[in-house]
Amino acid sequence: MLDKIDLSKKVDKKTYEEKRDALQIKLGALQRECKAAEMPVMIVFEGMGAAGKGVQINHLIQALDPRGFDVYACNRATEEEQMRPFLWRFWTKTPAKGRIAIFDRSWYRIVQVDRFDGLTDEKDLPAAYQDILSFEKQLSDDGTVIIKFFLYIDKKEQKKRFDHLTASKETSWRVTKEDLKRNEEFERYLRMNEEMLENTDTDYGPWTIIESVDKRYAALKIMTTVYDRLSRELEMRKMQKDNAAPQIPPAAAKENALYKNGVLSGIDLSKKLSQTEYKHEMKQLQQRLEELHSEIYRLRIPVVIGFEGWDAAGKGGAIRRLTSHLDPRGYRVNPTAAANDIEKVHHYLWRFWNNMPKAGHIAIFDRTWYGRVMVERIEGFCTEAEWKRAYQEINEMESHMYNAGTVILKFWLHIDKDEQERRFKERQENPDKQWKITDEDWRNRAKWDQYEEAVNEMLVRTSTTYAPWTVVEGNDKHYARVKVLKSVVDAMEKRIKEVKKKG
Amino acid sequence: MLDKIDLSKKVDKKTYEEKRDALQIKLGALQRECKAAEMPVMIVFEGMGAAGKGVQINHLIQALDPRGFDVYACNRATEEEQMRPFLWRFWTKTPAKGRIAIFDRSWYRIVQVDRFDGLTDEKDLPAAYQDILSFEKQLSDDGTVIIKFFLYIDKKEQKKRFDHLTASKETSWRVTKEDLKRNEEFERYLRMNEEMLENTDTDYGPWTIIESVDKRYAALKIMTTVYDRLSRELEMRKMQKDNAAPQIPPAAAKENALYKNGVLSGIDLSKKLSQTEYKHEMKQLQQRLEELHSEIYRLRIPVVIGFEGWDAAGKGGAIRRLTSHLDPRGYRVNPTAAANDIEKVHHYLWRFWNNMPKAGHIAIFDRTWYGRVMVERIEGFCTEAEWKRAYQEINEMESHMYNAGTVILKFWLHIDKDEQERRFKERQENPDKQWKITDEDWRNRAKWDQYEEAVNEMLVRTSTTYAPWTVVEGNDKHYARVKVLKSVVDAMEKRIKEVKKKG
Repeated sequence: MLDKIDLSKKVDKKTYEEKRDALQIKLGALQRECKAAEMPVMIVFEGMGAAGKGVQINHLIQALDPRGFDVYACNRATEEEQMRPFLWRFWTKTPAKGRIAIFDRSWYRIVQVDRFDGLTDEKDLPAAYQDILSFEKQLSDDGTVIIKFFLYIDKKEQKKRFDHLTASKETSWRVTKEDLKRNEEFERYLRMNEEMLENTDTDYGPWTIIESVDKRYAALKIMTTVYDRLSRELEMRKMQKDNAAPQIPPAAAKENALYKNGVLSGIDLSKKLSQTEYKHEMKQLQQRLEELHSEIYRLRIPVVIGFEGWDAAGKGGAIRRLTSHLDPRGYRVNPTAAANDIEKVHHYLWRFWNNMPKAGHIAIFDRTWYGRVMVERIEGFCTEAEWKRAYQEINEMESHMYNAGTVILKFWLHIDKDEQERRFKERQENPDKQWKITDEDWRNRAKWDQYEEAVNEMLVRTSTTYAPWTVVEGNDKHYARVKVLKSVVDAMEKRIKEVKKKG
Repeated sequence: MLDKIDLSKKVDKKTYEEKRDALQIKLGALQRECKAAEMPVMIVFEGMGAAGKGVQINHLIQALDPRGFDVYACNRATEEEQMRPFLWRFWTKTPAKGRIAIFDRSWYRIVQVDRFDGLTDEKDLPAAYQDILSFEKQLSDDGTVIIKFFLYIDKKEQKKRFDHLTASKETSWRVTKEDLKRNEEFERYLRMNEEMLENTDTDYGPWTIIESVDKRYAALKIMTTVYDRLSRELEMRKMQKDNAAPQIPPAAAKENALYKNGVLSGIDLSKKLSQTEYKHEMKQLQQRLEELHSEIYRLRIPVVIGFEGWDAAGKGGAIRRLTSHLDPRGYRVNPTAAANDIEKVHHYLWRFWNNMPKAGHIAIFDRTWYGRVMVERIEGFCTEAEWKRAYQEINEMESHMYNAGTVILKFWLHIDKDEQERRFKERQENPDKQWKITDEDWRNRAKWDQYEEAVNEMLVRTSTTYAPWTVVEGNDKHYARVKVLKSVVDAMEKRIKEVKKKG
């Protein structure tokens, strides 16, 4: 495929300079329009070594206002980055609304450079491709425009460029042993890239091959492609906005009758533990947790624990019992409040990706990404299409974490309506607890039935083998806390055993 | 000093639990008050190995709302962190208004652990102490409360704890060779710590020694200290607010008559370059810059280039000529707009610290931290006391960068009032440039004289040997651009020569 590319295309200097100057002005203006339209843009530069990615990126950004873009050079993952799932360092760099993120090499490393260098296991390729596709699909669904360039030169041209670089003391360090090997085994590396292009050329993230022997030709083709794609996207969005069907109001009651008598209605809330049993169990579990925390640290196992549940169901108390004997250097509690300014202009999963634990650490989330299919759904903070596709998006994220070795636990702390009322009133009467209860809590309570259906649907759609939900009977706080700790202990022990078995 | 500490202090379990429970409730309430008062708080935990820093931090945070604090474990600097000035990783972690940052080990590493381990050169100690003091002073002046704990146990107790840890397979990895060495040479390490305590016990950042043999005693003393200090600070701020003298309006005209006919009035704006000279010089300079960029990358020299100047003085054009032949992986243009929500709740220098380059990279700032002594001063966005102390704060920051090997260049692009008017009008008439000119530009222009005085004062107060200002005669764009590039080339060549000489 790539060897069929006509690399003889050329542009003379005069034509180039004229066209470039005109394009730069047009691109500058277009960037301001994209910013006004709050359109996030990702531009990926991949290609053969010495094909001129750096030079071409610099040409492109000369046309852009530096207030609106970032350039990320994606080298081999650092030690710090290797301690996270591989998409982590790219998710955290996804552009905010109205901004452009330019990637010099990208998430595609894993299926070509890193694969060639032996850093990627061949058996992990299918999962890597799937992760890449879902990453781009999720961002595209959220409105991000993805433009991908593959800069191609042939073996002979590459050799010539490497020779030129190595000839001078000032530039020879730029050519690595691996670069030379990729030139020697050009065809093998080429096949990996062709496979990548075939597997990941989608309507939401199409590739454009750039014939890169002539730098002027390449520069104009890149600028033109960016210009055309962004203009078209702006045009399409304008049309969609003009012709947008009125947003259908959420018809949860009717449509989800299926989830009316769901999982939650079958939960036995009479479960109890005596004070003595509680004290005894708690002491043993906390001690065991302390040991396990140390073990998962040594074995570099990341752990994600998400807490959801009714207001006043006891999330805070459970989290405190869970952490009270842990080393604070190895865990972090991430409370999830309403999104702040920076979070609001990113994909809704972005802020959770930012807080995912590194290997050996525990990240506890007090409320989680499931807000999308509960509060955001019910309050209409997102569209119906958005929360409906969130189930899959969330499953994909959790599956990615799991594949990176993460233990994932999700708790739904369940109480009944009477118990909630009792606790709300208790909070109101206790001066030390009054701050915990707000008008919003009472408003949420009024929507109990809607929430119950949403929770039932969530439990069904996102209970996976790799990230199961645990519903915790919460009317008795003792019982609930012990169940949470026990579940965490069990899940850690299980994974530790698996890891040790693997060696 | 420390060997005089009475380590026999003890608290029995019952007393402890009673007092702890009461303190936790009080601390929780106090944290909410600190948040409401927008008071940032830093709590530092230092001390002897195995003194129980982790356990004590965990006790403390059990009392706090996780939405309001962060814990940072400051291990030995990573490779990535070593490529920045040593305060960088701490500046970037300073708390926002109303938040608490807890440090498990801290910037004090450099004068004790890292010093003992031979990572800190003895000759760098005086500078390190000065950096630490100015870091804490700057934050304290900005309203941050700094609480510092030193957890002390004696040699025998430490030995006992190490023995206990090493006895079990699960915990032996926690004790390092270096830990054992610090126990063997306890007195030597102790002296380093005593020196640290003496040198850095200030009114704005006082140390509290915690007798840490009895964990319960230590926990109560820590919680009480935090409670007392925060209550007192809140009280003081309330009093200050009530008794605040009315803000004296800026009396720039009178007070700074000294700076009326300053540096700027002596600048010869008739300097020119012909189109031919310009083209010739520019080509050579850009080529040279490309080579030097590669060299500073190899030699790991960080470069900071700040641009200030009148509106329409040609900052953008100069930056474009400077970067057009550079590798985008090695430089970054940081435009400085009005502070966003996150930046607003931090120290004004925080966002610039965040963008300081790592070794081998160039950070270009389009407008800089000098906004504090220009626009913020003139528009009254900060108090007079704040901009007056900013000169020293900025010099301290730049000196810290310089000590870490950074090349610092600062340009003032100068044009006269007539030239600015001509350019404003040209922008208004050119459809491609209209977006560049706003009402604000005209408003700033009306304050030309005030700005001129502020700039003159700034040039005098912050032109240092380590970070000099270069005033660029800007009426002729050709001349200005060539002067900027030449200055950068000269500064890089000079530093490269110095570095190579040192070996």
